[in-house]
Amino acid sequence: MGGAINNPSRPIDGVVHTPLRRIVDERGMVMHHLNHLSPTFKGFEESYISKTYPGKLKAWKLHRKMTQNFCVPVGRMHFVLFDARDDSPTKGEINEFVLDDADQYALLCIPPGIWYGFECLGIETALIVNVSNVYYDPTEALKLDPFDASIPYSGWTNEKP
Amino acid sequence: MGGAINNPSRPIDGVVHTPLRRIVDERGMVMHHLNHLSPTFKGFEESYISKTYPGKLKAWKLHRKMTQNFCVPVGRMHFVLFDARDDSPTKGEINEFVLDDADQYALLCIPPGIWYGFECLGIETALIVNVSNVYYDPTEALKLDPFDASIPYSGWTNEKP
Repeated sequence: MGGAINNPSRPIDGVVHTPLRRIVDERGMVMHHLNHLSPTFKGFEESYISKTYPGKLKAWKLHRKMTQNFCVPVGRMHFVLFDARDDSPTKGEINEFVLDDADQYALLCIPPGIWYGFECLGIETALIVNVSNVYYDPTEALKLDPFDASIPYSGWTNEKP
Repeated sequence: MGGAINNPSRPIDGVVHTPLRRIVDERGMVMHHLNHLSPTFKGFEESYISKTYPGKLKAWKLHRKMTQNFCVPVGRMHFVLFDARDDSPTKGEINEFVLDDADQYALLCIPPGIWYGFECLGIETALIVNVSNVYYDPTEALKLDPFDASIPYSGWTNEKP
């Protein structure tokens, strides 16, 4: 489905996957996320956290205005993105990413206009921390069922249609 | 030590403890943190995550410029704050807070000039998410040993002097 996970053969235009640093000591660690000089930072209007239980899936969602900057500091999450933008050079592409709190600790920037969904992998509740440039506004978000026929993806592992 | 945990008899001037919402469903939850209209929001320069293992303590630290906006979306953390500001109406006060991912899910705003430390309670690694108005700058932070005699606190539960 569009190349290797975390290394798509055709990266969706505007989607950026960047490994992040973790500074570890005997008490725990500090995990980088985002700062005002980060290339994908588009302004701050809200920071929030999203927990997903093992075996659960949240899909599909699209934001018309919001740029998301996700990291997964606990657990492991599988992200699927679909580019449905008419004016995009990568229209129709699917990209997949797996982010976790260890070797795959990374920032995933999702620009507006991309359908995305995610599912928790493994037995630990997974956490997304997001910094967004648009304060929560239900009118700028669209939703579809995880198995809606308009998105050409059938690889979810936590649910079958 | 200065009144009840999460309800100090003399709240340190500028410290704000605000319960936060969690929106729960069968797949997980969305947990509020901070937005650009929040009363304690002082601007965005960095978002980061700090993990502390069970039994571990991180103290003391003071930021000269940075306002911190902490929440604890995983686990449970005990925070101790000491006001050493010469010009503060609450100079010399100790305040204590316990934040967690359940009934005590809350925002803790710590203004500049406050000594603070925290320890992980329980058996789950605890997580702090912070949005700060100052990008990491080691020259604006001061440190002291957890049992330094200049801070009148001896209640840490994870370590004894």
